[in-house]
Amino acid sequence: MTSSLTRLPAYPPDILLIEDGSLEVELTVRPLRELDASTRIEVARDGEEALDFLFGRGSHRHRIGEPPPRLILLDLKLPRMDGFDVLRAVRTNSRTSVVPVVVLTASDDPRELAQCYQLGANSCVQKPVHYKELRAVLQSVGRYWLELNQSPPAPVQPLG
Amino acid sequence: MTSSLTRLPAYPPDILLIEDGSLEVELTVRPLRELDASTRIEVARDGEEALDFLFGRGSHRHRIGEPPPRLILLDLKLPRMDGFDVLRAVRTNSRTSVVPVVVLTASDDPRELAQCYQLGANSCVQKPVHYKELRAVLQSVGRYWLELNQSPPAPVQPLG
Repeated sequence: MTSSLTRLPAYPPDILLIEDGSLEVELTVRPLRELDASTRIEVARDGEEALDFLFGRGSHRHRIGEPPPRLILLDLKLPRMDGFDVLRAVRTNSRTSVVPVVVLTASDDPRELAQCYQLGANSCVQKPVHYKELRAVLQSVGRYWLELNQSPPAPVQPLG
Repeated sequence: MTSSLTRLPAYPPDILLIEDGSLEVELTVRPLRELDASTRIEVARDGEEALDFLFGRGSHRHRIGEPPPRLILLDLKLPRMDGFDVLRAVRTNSRTSVVPVVVLTASDDPRELAQCYQLGANSCVQKPVHYKELRAVLQSVGRYWLELNQSPPAPVQPLG
């Protein structure tokens, strides 16, 4: 997988995965790579890093002016800043306001679900416990959002 | 297909298809029925009728208090009120503000695409010209939104 430490990615990523658990990252990236080995996946381990990456701030200043990913996969339980706050920040910034966000969650709490949609998640998908089902679900998510969905056009960015 | 004239549907529909062309309705409903014959599909032939149905107004007053469909499939080119206006109205009404909306379009105009996402479409899918591909695309859309996606919980409605 592309390390989040990569300083100068040749292309913007297809997917930004925002997930803190190492095992969860591995179990999410592997099925997506199996679906299409050329998919560019960037990983942010917490909400602050995700926003730095998306907005070209902090250690990701070099990304200023680069187009956003085609898809954000968002875990809700994150250190420093939770997934709801990440979603709110993504939706209120003009660079990312229309980037598709799929919330991946282990929960089926209707209040959590309602809040995700109210904050502008495009879709919420429950992660199955067993790997075989998880793999099928993630590959369906990848196929839908990277192959079938028409991604929003990248916003016109001022030159960095 | 369930007629839009049905006065007292036993259950709320799974899908509200907003599409004016008779052939397009037939070619959209058939693949979704083949995927799952039990899917309840309601059809609105123009934007005004769609909003009357969703908001329980006019000839759809009897629907007041009924939960919204799990998915809205929206054509952009509609008589009386275009798809953009329908989308704007759906997103600003608390009954329907978080109902997933997939825009089905024959166009790949980036301005149209940007506007759909800015107005709150969850996803935009281009309709292939040939039926075999159209069928596959519609069945993927049906599978994703009715089987994989966690639908938002229905809003609490005042009793009609």
